[in-house]
Amino acid sequence: MKAIQVVGYHEKLQPTEIPMPEPAGPYDVVVKIGGAGVCRTDIHILEGQWAEKSGVTLPYTIGHENAGWVHAVGSAVTNVAEGDKVIVHPLVTCGLCRACRSGDDVHCQQSLFPGIDTHGGYAEYLKTSARSVVKIDDSLEPADVAALADAGLTAYHAAAKAARTLRPGDRCVVIGAGGLGHIGIQVLKALTAAELIVVDRNADAVQLAVSIGADQGVVADGTHVAQVLELTGGNGAEVVVDFVGEGGATAEGVRMLRRAGDYHVVGYGENIDIPTIDIISAEINFIGNLVGSYNDLCELMVLAAQGKVRLHTSKYRLERFQDAIDDLEAGRIRGRAILTP
Amino acid sequence: MKAIQVVGYHEKLQPTEIPMPEPAGPYDVVVKIGGAGVCRTDIHILEGQWAEKSGVTLPYTIGHENAGWVHAVGSAVTNVAEGDKVIVHPLVTCGLCRACRSGDDVHCQQSLFPGIDTHGGYAEYLKTSARSVVKIDDSLEPADVAALADAGLTAYHAAAKAARTLRPGDRCVVIGAGGLGHIGIQVLKALTAAELIVVDRNADAVQLAVSIGADQGVVADGTHVAQVLELTGGNGAEVVVDFVGEGGATAEGVRMLRRAGDYHVVGYGENIDIPTIDIISAEINFIGNLVGSYNDLCELMVLAAQGKVRLHTSKYRLERFQDAIDDLEAGRIRGRAILTP
Amino acid sequence: MKAIQVVGYHEKLQPTEIPMPEPAGPYDVVVKIGGAGVCRTDIHILEGQWAEKSGVTLPYTIGHENAGWVHAVGSAVTNVAEGDKVIVHPLVTCGLCRACRSGDDVHCQQSLFPGIDTHGGYAEYLKTSARSVVKIDDSLEPADVAALADAGLTAYHAAAKAARTLRPGDRCVVIGAGGLGHIGIQVLKALTAAELIVVDRNADAVQLAVSIGADQGVVADGTHVAQVLELTGGNGAEVVVDFVGEGGATAEGVRMLRRAGDYHVVGYGENIDIPTIDIISAEINFIGNLVGSYNDLCELMVLAAQGKVRLHTSKYRLERFQDAIDDLEAGRIRGRAILTP
Amino acid sequence: MKAIQVVGYHEKLQPTEIPMPEPAGPYDVVVKIGGAGVCRTDIHILEGQWAEKSGVTLPYTIGHENAGWVHAVGSAVTNVAEGDKVIVHPLVTCGLCRACRSGDDVHCQQSLFPGIDTHGGYAEYLKTSARSVVKIDDSLEPADVAALADAGLTAYHAAAKAARTLRPGDRCVVIGAGGLGHIGIQVLKALTAAELIVVDRNADAVQLAVSIGADQGVVADGTHVAQVLELTGGNGAEVVVDFVGEGGATAEGVRMLRRAGDYHVVGYGENIDIPTIDIISAEINFIGNLVGSYNDLCELMVLAAQGKVRLHTSKYRLERFQDAIDDLEAGRIRGRAILTP
Repeated sequence: MKAIQVVGYHEKLQPTEIPMPEPAGPYDVVVKIGGAGVCRTDIHILEGQWAEKSGVTLPYTIGHENAGWVHAVGSAVTNVAEGDKVIVHPLVTCGLCRACRSGDDVHCQQSLFPGIDTHGGYAEYLKTSARSVVKIDDSLEPADVAALADAGLTAYHAAAKAARTLRPGDRCVVIGAGGLGHIGIQVLKALTAAELIVVDRNADAVQLAVSIGADQGVVADGTHVAQVLELTGGNGAEVVVDFVGEGGATAEGVRMLRRAGDYHVVGYGENIDIPTIDIISAEINFIGNLVGSYNDLCELMVLAAQGKVRLHTSKYRLERFQDAIDDLEAGRIRGRAILTP
Repeated sequence: MKAIQVVGYHEKLQPTEIPMPEPAGPYDVVVKIGGAGVCRTDIHILEGQWAEKSGVTLPYTIGHENAGWVHAVGSAVTNVAEGDKVIVHPLVTCGLCRACRSGDDVHCQQSLFPGIDTHGGYAEYLKTSARSVVKIDDSLEPADVAALADAGLTAYHAAAKAARTLRPGDRCVVIGAGGLGHIGIQVLKALTAAELIVVDRNADAVQLAVSIGADQGVVADGTHVAQVLELTGGNGAEVVVDFVGEGGATAEGVRMLRRAGDYHVVGYGENIDIPTIDIISAEINFIGNLVGSYNDLCELMVLAAQGKVRLHTSKYRLERFQDAIDDLEAGRIRGRAILTP
Repeated sequence: MKAIQVVGYHEKLQPTEIPMPEPAGPYDVVVKIGGAGVCRTDIHILEGQWAEKSGVTLPYTIGHENAGWVHAVGSAVTNVAEGDKVIVHPLVTCGLCRACRSGDDVHCQQSLFPGIDTHGGYAEYLKTSARSVVKIDDSLEPADVAALADAGLTAYHAAAKAARTLRPGDRCVVIGAGGLGHIGIQVLKALTAAELIVVDRNADAVQLAVSIGADQGVVADGTHVAQVLELTGGNGAEVVVDFVGEGGATAEGVRMLRRAGDYHVVGYGENIDIPTIDIISAEINFIGNLVGSYNDLCELMVLAAQGKVRLHTSKYRLERFQDAIDDLEAGRIRGRAILTP
Repeated sequence: MKAIQVVGYHEKLQPTEIPMPEPAGPYDVVVKIGGAGVCRTDIHILEGQWAEKSGVTLPYTIGHENAGWVHAVGSAVTNVAEGDKVIVHPLVTCGLCRACRSGDDVHCQQSLFPGIDTHGGYAEYLKTSARSVVKIDDSLEPADVAALADAGLTAYHAAAKAARTLRPGDRCVVIGAGGLGHIGIQVLKALTAAELIVVDRNADAVQLAVSIGADQGVVADGTHVAQVLELTGGNGAEVVVDFVGEGGATAEGVRMLRRAGDYHVVGYGENIDIPTIDIISAEINFIGNLVGSYNDLCELMVLAAQGKVRLHTSKYRLERFQDAIDDLEAGRIRGRAILTP
């Protein structure tokens, strides 16, 4: 089958022919790819940023945001059957460790991450696990939802966790209305009646945020901390969800946070660097957020099927993978780039 | 009455005679002091560290850890009566703001802090509020429990919050077995079956910690992070409660924390300075902890009455306040110094 | 001032002139009534059903769903001032007991209930407490929101509690789309993405429920349990909120509940009568729901100001109180009857 | 191998020779039995009470409380290996349904229950699943802990759930100090500082309860409700855990429950029969409790290894199964009867 592989760091991806994956283990599932998201992480992989961390052996097939149709299943698979339309959770988890047994499979003690540390989805077929496939509604198409498998799932996880403490009358600041923030706003809107204040450097992104449900849009022009404080009666917001995490976002974000508030870290890049006395005297919390669990992905697919979460995509045939990457690097993609069969 | 006052920063405290406080407002309560804790914060006040933050007008009476007997009550007070033995919550709160109405009175929007921003308890009598007095068990004496009013309450608050997520088989690292840590260990022991690993630079403090219930004691000698990792199967602990917060404790503490773990910040001094990528990739949380609520103080007094929390004290008559401060500065106090009538 | 009083059980209410209430205690607040809800409980009071339970001395002024404008305040009141537009929480609570101190003021150990055990709001003025008045948005009018003070608050409390466990993809059955159910549906819609299945005997009520957000409407015609099971894949719903509680609703409702589900009891009349083996083998919970807390009322007023919760009212001038009661008894009121000045 | 089987209802169990089980599926685990608990449920099975509910085909091997050593494993098993000392969770669960994926494997949508609906542990070997075996501490012996696999696990589950809301100063009434109650008391003692009030009809059981940690023992002699009310200041307890559930226990238990309290149903037999008005006016909850999850069993094994939970056992060689059953029926067993190899 066709697959697009990393053959060396600081080199271009290479198309190649490799054998089709087959279900070897009892819980293996082979998925015919209907859509594979092209993510900034893929570019970072090519730059070698993940080389040491993943320890992957080259060449290998990248692509960690996948959806498609079940093609073949291992002997013990009971939850999906050939032909089922599925989105693929990014991790292959063991199901036996304490984390998996408590619903927190993201912290599985021996997970694989196809597209990062083993073969991924820039290909015709992907091998994953029965524990990783979520059946999707008839109304949804793999190429339309593929990017929800990782970027969207991360946004869902953070937004849903934040929503658990938000009550009517509370304010939630969302920093960053890009790919993840865009999903996060729609999720917060679906799960809470809190007032959403969205901050972004890009006025168009702010406008888009308001059009999909943000109650207040604030352009980050240097006056934005003051604006948020004014919008929150001088006290700051009960919750900040930071989808940026770099360029000074965290220091500004903390100034927008109310006493006893939660600061959700989602985006990354810079350090959280804050005096412990400020943490204790305001009694604020910093909450880490990684990708969501399998059940989180099921819930996100419900919101997608209900039309409450939508994502703009630009589609490219698999063989045009280089165009997709070039467009992403050049900032020419609105929403997410998706490779299709 | 006699009162010990701050008359100028970088000057010594001065004894003086001032009028006895009287219940002016309907919820006022005047307490005859039976014990007033001498706290390192009192020394910091004299050094002027709180001058700007508190905005207090000099001269004023310090002392924010108080217990005694109700001497007089305002017209609307129904929960205590003259003669009741009480410990005094450090804050005077409004009871009407949203925080007070949700049990989170520590974040009251217009609280007073006697001993910090108004007259405190280095005196014969203290004026506080009906909302701040907790009746204590017959078996407890004001001079013995006074130091639980602030230092102990902070430790209780953090330990009880940490205990809520700890399950049998989990590990909790306690950094610092000094005044607060000492209480925190006893509280964790009373509220959870988790394994307690206590880390302190002082071998005597570690030994004391083990004698009051720590399952493992680790002297911070440079190998302590490695020791904790070994004690936790290489994974780190589900929870770290950091009563130190300076001298490199936080960077070391984070290395002792397991994926998806909670890092409770209680002690302060240095900055939390950690890459956002480490926060999100391990999905850890930093939880701020301020002093406990009124109900927290009630709960701590139950543990004290049950003999589950004990505190060593050194008592000084009120007029010997300078000896107490000198001994505290010189490191000659084991446990807490208490001024008595 | 004018007041409408209970002068004897099984007798009609009597209009009379009584002295205006004045703020006697420091936290007293006198409210000029802008709207007083006429509730079925008022009819039950006249029938003597509450005589023993409330122990109230006749004659007294009834009316427990009140809103209006602050007319006068006691010496210690700081949270409202003369002229403020307010809705009145039905209970006057102490603020000092453990329940009040933990945000659960509904379980205050010494509360009063104006309109039930002391003078209420079928009058020109009502005496309540600073702890009971919630300022409302400029856009809201007392006569429009008065009925949210008790009936609406009960529905909000139950719906918001239920919403805390509901996730996208879960189903919530609402039994009863009358006064409370109507509010409950709007609240669930605002706070959760769960699918709402509304069951009522009245086809018009079901239609109305669907028009305000129910995802599925089921007329209780004898096939309704089977219909709900079919709508839930044969498993039942994760949550049932029962606003009826009589006429066999609870036995039917339990059959609509999924394993590990929560059955919220709000309406009352009959007994919950269920084998303990059914409770343990399905591991279901029965959750009691009384009226909401002060903070619940604040949150409901936010939803009202956002237009997310609306209530149909029929207004009567105070002197036409008997018409309102007659219309209520005759089933001629759509929504709630409100007495206005 | 030897196995003891049900050959007909209302007949005696029969010893027989059957083939040894082998790991057929990839996750199968065969355990050499070290201890099999003899439970009152086994007697109920023989009486035919479970015939319809389980649908099991006769003959089959009973025994649902098992512990031993891993004898053989399927091809995909990674969490245990031959020779491991294990306790066996009573259910074999799928690991793929939403309940399993959220840590709530007890509500698995397609579980098996060896000893109830398929072959159990009154035998030399038992076939179970990798998802059901918990490695136990070196210090524990299978025959000593086997009865914790079901009866103990149920008690742990209820007690640990109850403990989550109990704070110092709260009271917890435990109804029934028999097999389950005995474990529940030890668990509550390990996990909470709440005051434990134990009620039982048997004075010896009450005395035993006090010896293992109950703060108050009350013999149910007709004055017990009054006694509990007196011990709780007339208000009742914040939590009741009812291990009896028959003979009037629930009606009495509810009278011992405080407003806003939780009534944990564990024992069963009679109906909960209570007016809905009592549920809503006191705002109490009835919480169902089934057996615990896999992770619950892991936690219970930690408490057992720490010596915090101990169980008295009477051991019988497997071939003496009839003596064990006879002794159980005659009330001659103190603690639990265990069959050993």
